[in-house]
Amino acid sequence: MIPAVPGFTSLTGNIGIKDNRPDFALLGVNTPEAASAVVFTQSRFAGPSVRLGREIDPSALRGVVVVSGNANVATGGQGLADARWLRAWAGETLGCPAEQILVASTGVIGVLYPVERMLAGMDALPAPGPADLGAVAEAIMTTDTRPKCASRTVGNAIVVGVAKGVGMMEPNMATMLSFLTTDAQISTDDLDRIFRAVVDRTFNAVSIDSDTSTSDTAAVFASGEAGPVNHVEFEAALLEVCTELVRMIASDGEGASKLIEVRVTGARDDAQAKLVAKSVANSPLVKTAVHGADPNWGRVAMAVGKCESEIDILEENVRIAFGGLEAYPVPGSPQRRAELQEYLRGDEVVIEVDLGIAAGAFTVYGCDLTEGYIRINADYTT
Amino acid sequence: MIPAVPGFTSLTGNIGIKDNRPDFALLGVNTPEAASAVVFTQSRFAGPSVRLGREIDPSALRGVVVVSGNANVATGGQGLADARWLRAWAGETLGCPAEQILVASTGVIGVLYPVERMLAGMDALPAPGPADLGAVAEAIMTTDTRPKCASRTVGNAIVVGVAKGVGMMEPNMATMLSFLTTDAQISTDDLDRIFRAVVDRTFNAVSIDSDTSTSDTAAVFASGEAGPVNHVEFEAALLEVCTELVRMIASDGEGASKLIEVRVTGARDDAQAKLVAKSVANSPLVKTAVHGADPNWGRVAMAVGKCESEIDILEENVRIAFGGLEAYPVPGSPQRRAELQEYLRGDEVVIEVDLGIAAGAFTVYGCDLTEGYIRINADYTT
Repeated sequence: MIPAVPGFTSLTGNIGIKDNRPDFALLGVNTPEAASAVVFTQSRFAGPSVRLGREIDPSALRGVVVVSGNANVATGGQGLADARWLRAWAGETLGCPAEQILVASTGVIGVLYPVERMLAGMDALPAPGPADLGAVAEAIMTTDTRPKCASRTVGNAIVVGVAKGVGMMEPNMATMLSFLTTDAQISTDDLDRIFRAVVDRTFNAVSIDSDTSTSDTAAVFASGEAGPVNHVEFEAALLEVCTELVRMIASDGEGASKLIEVRVTGARDDAQAKLVAKSVANSPLVKTAVHGADPNWGRVAMAVGKCESEIDILEENVRIAFGGLEAYPVPGSPQRRAELQEYLRGDEVVIEVDLGIAAGAFTVYGCDLTEGYIRINADYTT
Repeated sequence: MIPAVPGFTSLTGNIGIKDNRPDFALLGVNTPEAASAVVFTQSRFAGPSVRLGREIDPSALRGVVVVSGNANVATGGQGLADARWLRAWAGETLGCPAEQILVASTGVIGVLYPVERMLAGMDALPAPGPADLGAVAEAIMTTDTRPKCASRTVGNAIVVGVAKGVGMMEPNMATMLSFLTTDAQISTDDLDRIFRAVVDRTFNAVSIDSDTSTSDTAAVFASGEAGPVNHVEFEAALLEVCTELVRMIASDGEGASKLIEVRVTGARDDAQAKLVAKSVANSPLVKTAVHGADPNWGRVAMAVGKCESEIDILEENVRIAFGGLEAYPVPGSPQRRAELQEYLRGDEVVIEVDLGIAAGAFTVYGCDLTEGYIRINADYTT
């Protein structure tokens, strides 16, 4: 069901972090001529995995090793040593220098790896085989309720991506974890430029709870086996894959029952549109109103209004709609209210805000805020 | 139980906005020589009440008229006309020009006042009598579960304040609504300077859900009847009254079961301390961890770490404690963990973060995030 991407190797299994579900993945690209690009969290408490990753040459990556269930964050010198050990193991297994391996680790913060148990588990794993991205998508899950995988073809090539992340989610320059593979042939410079443009519109445009992870990492690997591709088409395919992953992430947000897409148009520029869209998508009052299928456009207005620095936003120029049904400023008729309520009962809610200033636009993906989010996060234990 | 403040008049009652609870208050200072100061929300969607208030001379206020249950926000030209009508009625009742009356209105957004019903209710009210601040505190409540009133004496004078607000609460320059009265004699310039300094440390330091109201207003009135006071003592008394009100607001936050006080010290400056303290106090993951009495200092570290612009925050210099019990970087023993859990089961939780940079400090007041918040806000209807 998940298509294979020529030129990649993978290995997944349980190494004793979680009970018996997969908690370990190794994904490698077979040729040293492969291209790659990577972006990381900007957190000031980034863990050793991210710290090591920031030091390496992002265009010469040969693979990534992923541990799920333990973030190895705020673990001091021992945590850094453990990340180096994991990287060395992965390099040896894939037959490349340790410095070409990315380490990604998510889960509980502040707990050292159970290294002995992990080592026993890793020794018992089979040798890597042709990449199985579906298995990788499963192995990298933590509190995710379902694996996240998406693919598109572009010319003779294919793009397949996986992602995880359902809480502590407001990535800035990267999502929790996402890995993208392609057999397209592309230079590292072009790949980096295209990837950053795509990440800005996708992983940087999702927010589940406004909390930025210490471990966010997104990387793309291109094996080159399918030969060159049209760059415009490649960027479009990568954008579609990443957008699909981001929608999966948002709709699987902790406790979420609905995907919320906030489309802001008519802004001074895209940056202003993004600021306003994030303000709406992150507002607990908007998120709970959507959860209750309440067409409470007043809360959307509040969330626009609290962007206090934006003095060119004037109440009289703003328009607010849900799924194309205008809610403000046209006064609500009982019929329109009924239409809006019916629309808000759906699984996906689009909130449209036009600022009436210029042509800036941005779309942010989020989810509703439910009792489920509280239960998950009040009960989750350190 | 709530002391009387010489030189003030009030009137409260039901005028048909809510069912039969008080929903209307008028508070006036008797002498034209009184001093006053006021701060408002910075929302771009501020309602006509705040818009009218921003135009008037803040040092020459004679009173405030408060409607609870309807915010009169995003109500267009008719809403502005209704606010002017309310103000004129209040001026006539208190015997002063309409332009010396502040209008404050909170509740549902986007619904016009039921003017005819209100007028009938207002006509049936008794004449204003000596101020009853306890009755005012009750009449201005919306979803508050209890009235909020605090007082201190300073020299021969007294300071009594009331406040309301439990949701859509991250004031910037003012809280939802707070009115402070004193019989101290003080110049308008001194009162304004002192009030702004106090507001910055109190109402601007509370956050329940990071959502900024369209209607926030805080005002102080000084009748002067007690004669002059020492300014340092007056500021200290006002700070204590406002801090007490802010703690009442935070602990009555929608659905809240615990007051959270985030004390950041060792910052580059107070502004940095405030940024970090708000990041921690607003983090849904910190708020749910406190709700679950889980000493998850990793989430506090995450919330500090997501202040990405603060490049002088270094993980190795940060210390995190709960109620004086250090949690990071000292590795947790089972005994410390048990102590922390016991501490977190209390009604008030103090989270201490020292950044280890310089002497900047700031304290922010918030509350935990519970199923109750979701229920209140998913069910509340427009």
